[in-house]
Formats: sequence, structure tokens, C-alpha cells
Amino acid sequence: MGTIAFIGAGPGAADLITVRGARLLAEAEVVLADALTDPALRALAPQAHWIDVGKRGFGRATEQTVIHALLLHHAATGARVVRLKGGDPSVFGRLEEELAAVRAAGHEAVVVPGVTAALAAAADAQQPLTRRGHGRSVALTTAMTREHDLQAGRHADTEVFYMAGKQLPGLARQLAAAGWPATTPVSVVSRAGWPDAIHSQHTLDTLAQASVLHSGRPTVVWIGAGARALPAAPAPAERPQADADKRARSSVLRTLP
Amino acid sequence: MGTIAFIGAGPGAADLITVRGARLLAEAEVVLADALTDPALRALAPQAHWIDVGKRGFGRATEQTVIHALLLHHAATGARVVRLKGGDPSVFGRLEEELAAVRAAGHEAVVVPGVTAALAAAADAQQPLTRRGHGRSVALTTAMTREHDLQAGRHADTEVFYMAGKQLPGLARQLAAAGWPATTPVSVVSRAGWPDAIHSQHTLDTLAQASVLHSGRPTVVWIGAGARALPAAPAPAERPQADADKRARSSVLRTLP
Repeated sequence: MGTIAFIGAGPGAADLITVRGARLLAEAEVVLADALTDPALRALAPQAHWIDVGKRGFGRATEQTVIHALLLHHAATGARVVRLKGGDPSVFGRLEEELAAVRAAGHEAVVVPGVTAALAAAADAQQPLTRRGHGRSVALTTAMTREHDLQAGRHADTEVFYMAGKQLPGLARQLAAAGWPATTPVSVVSRAGWPDAIHSQHTLDTLAQASVLHSGRPTVVWIGAGARALPAAPAPAERPQADADKRARSSVLRTLP
Repeated sequence: MGTIAFIGAGPGAADLITVRGARLLAEAEVVLADALTDPALRALAPQAHWIDVGKRGFGRATEQTVIHALLLHHAATGARVVRLKGGDPSVFGRLEEELAAVRAAGHEAVVVPGVTAALAAAADAQQPLTRRGHGRSVALTTAMTREHDLQAGRHADTEVFYMAGKQLPGLARQLAAAGWPATTPVSVVSRAGWPDAIHSQHTLDTLAQASVLHSGRPTVVWIGAGARALPAAPAPAERPQADADKRARSSVLRTLP
């Protein structure tokens, strides 16, 4: 009987997969991959039979059934099968359904975690999602419900939404209705983790304007403590003199054991 | 002037770092590393000068000052400096303080995201943190406040706590007080992502008993929709016949374009 590994590919760019994920991918004989992952990931398993099971081309209802059938079919041939998912499989990855189907057929599977988009977005913006003292909790949410309604609330110190960039005006209205003040900082990153990632900084009352910039790109939006921008680096003229700087550092370093 | 990269090492085991992180680590000349990361990570940068800046041995107040001084000192020598942090730098990584210090001195930095412990724990337990239809949001929280009080609430469909395994009885009391019913599923994983990870499954009213099993190990606890166990694989005798199974799959596969 073959093996099945669910692997988080990370937010998109191929080099944000984990080393463990890359190693298992290199050993794979069959890869069922989401459409959104970086084509460069294919270079990590050039000998494998790659099957695109992404959302393009299939209706939503049949899609999961087909993926389950493909997973079980290829595992039954004795192949090493990888199910490569965007982001992390345990966060908005619909892992539950595929894992249940695999188990019901008597297979065991391994799950390799990945970098979820929120973490890549925070890294790109250089705005940590938690802040010492006033940002103890961070909530990750899909703004869209199954019924395609937009829903957003105020539950954690920092609230992160995975969504489409064109929905920002609706998100702004929901967040205001949920009680976030108009001046709350909001950070938006589209195509997090890619070289062409875009970050823009807003307050809640100007968030809607960001939809032009990020429209048509997968987008991560976060509001609250973790969306506050850190001070930028000062211009060279405003910097403390290099010598004074070095003296201050030396005095601290001398305290090292 | 040197370069500074903040890199998330993942939850512990060296192979859960990203490929991007491993590549930058291999190019590093100086690495300031947290104490908790896998010693095997050193093999990824054997030529670098490694400095342990973990919590052991330093008082809390001086620690950050010393790390800032070391970062700036080595960057000023023109070195490629890596600040290697456990998990993801943007989640409970205290990235804010170090990034602010680096910027104030006129340096730019890059941030490479990592797998935060919650994702590794969910992968180990094979219990996705989000569930279709009834698990739309997941909140990550440190149960301990700065004042070393335990605080836990009920804010998202799934609530994840990063904490010490010995604090489970206190956590159980807080969660009950916050309104979670006694029969709510709770999942506990210690040493997530490592070969010796332990997963145990509870309901809120039996969670306190888990403290013996996980005491002394870094622990991730989650409650709510995402802590519900998936059905286990059936015993071989209870499985549908392989042939019937294969026929069902074939009929689905024939619908593929």
C-alpha cells in the first residue's frame, strides 16, 4: 500500500515550503497540487506525476470527491502520494474532509505543517501580529462565509482576515460595525511571501481605498495591536553618530559573561 | 554595512525551517539563536559564529538589550547576521523590540516567516484548526500574562494556547469560567513537530489530568471546533472490500476531463 503525505506548501513562493516538506516532495511519485502554488515547486519533484487539482475547471461540489478518489487510487497502486496544499493544511486548508476520506479507506497519512499566509504577510510588512504587553492574542478568520456573505468581528487584540483584495470596502464596513474605532491601524498585504508582494498601511476609515491597489490578488488584512507600524529607520543625517553608537554598544557588550 | 535577517526556525525540529530560512542560514556569518531550537540547525551553518542568546543565563531585563547590542555590533562589522527565533518571528517572538532597535540604528532587515507551534501541533494531532462550516476562526494566545497570571477566554471557534504543560489545571478552570461547556473537546500536543511529540485528547472536564503527561514539555492546547477528533481508520475487517472500493473510485475518476 502506498503512502499519503499532506504537505503545506506555504503562502506561494516555492522557497517558503519547509525542508521536511521539500524532502518528502522530492521522494513523491504522484503529487496532487492546488492551483495556487508556485510552478517552481515542480522542480522539487521533477520525476513525479503532477496532477493539478486546483479550483479552476472543477465545480465546487465534485472537486473534493475527485480529489479523494485520486488520492485513494494512486495510494492503492503503492505510490508515494503527496497532497500539496497552499499555506498550512490545518488552517483553511479543508484538510478535514480529505483526511477523513483517506482514513475511512483504511490509510494512514502524515501531515507536514506549512507557513500560513498571515505569517508571511506579517513578515513582509515587518509588523509582528503579537505585541508585548498589548497584543496577546491573534485571530485568523476567513471573512467570507459559505453563503458568500462577508463577516468580520472584534474578538482578539489582532484580527487577521484571509480574503480577496476587492472586498476591502465591505470588510471596512463590517469592522466598523463590530466596534473597531475609525482610527484603528489596518495593514494590508497582497501576494504575501512573493517578490512582488505589496504592503499598504491604513486606518479603518481609509481601508476601503486599498481595494484598487490589491484587487485581483490574494490578500491578507489585519487590524488592531499587530497592525501598528513600527518606526521607520531614521534618515542618515538624523542617526546617532557611528562612534557614539559604537561606544554605547561596547558598554553593553562588556556586561556579557 | 552587514545584513540582518530575522528567521523563524519553526517549532523545534530542524527540518521544519523553510527552504528560504535554511538558505539564508547557510550564508550567515554570525547567528544569534534562541536556546530552544534544535542543535541540528547548527549543521545548516557550520561555518558561522553561533551565539546562544536564549533565556538561560540572562536576566529578563538585560536580555533584550544584550541581543540588540550583539545584532548591531556584528552588523557594523559588515557580517551577514541571522537572528534565529523559535516558531514564527511574528507570533510571540518579540520581534517588535529587536526590529525597532535595528531600525533606530539605521539598519534594514529582512524577516523570513516560520511554522508557528500551533500549526505543527495540529499537524501532529491530525486535527485541523479550522473546520468547514463550523470552525471559521482560530485564535492564538499566550495563556500567561506579563504578570504571570493565567488568562484564557472564549473568542474564536477554536482557541489555541501556547503554554507550559504543567499549567493545564489552571487553564481548564479559566476556560470553564469563560463559558466553554464541560464536554467541549480539547487537544493537547507537547513537543510539536518533534519525533517524540505526544498528543492526548480530552474534554474540558478531564483536561487537568493531562498535566502529568505533558509536564516539563513545551505544550500547545486547543479547544473548540478544531479540537474535535476525526474518525480513526476502521480495522481491516470493517473496511469496504478493496474491489468495491476500486469500482467506486473508478466511476468517479471516469468523470475527470
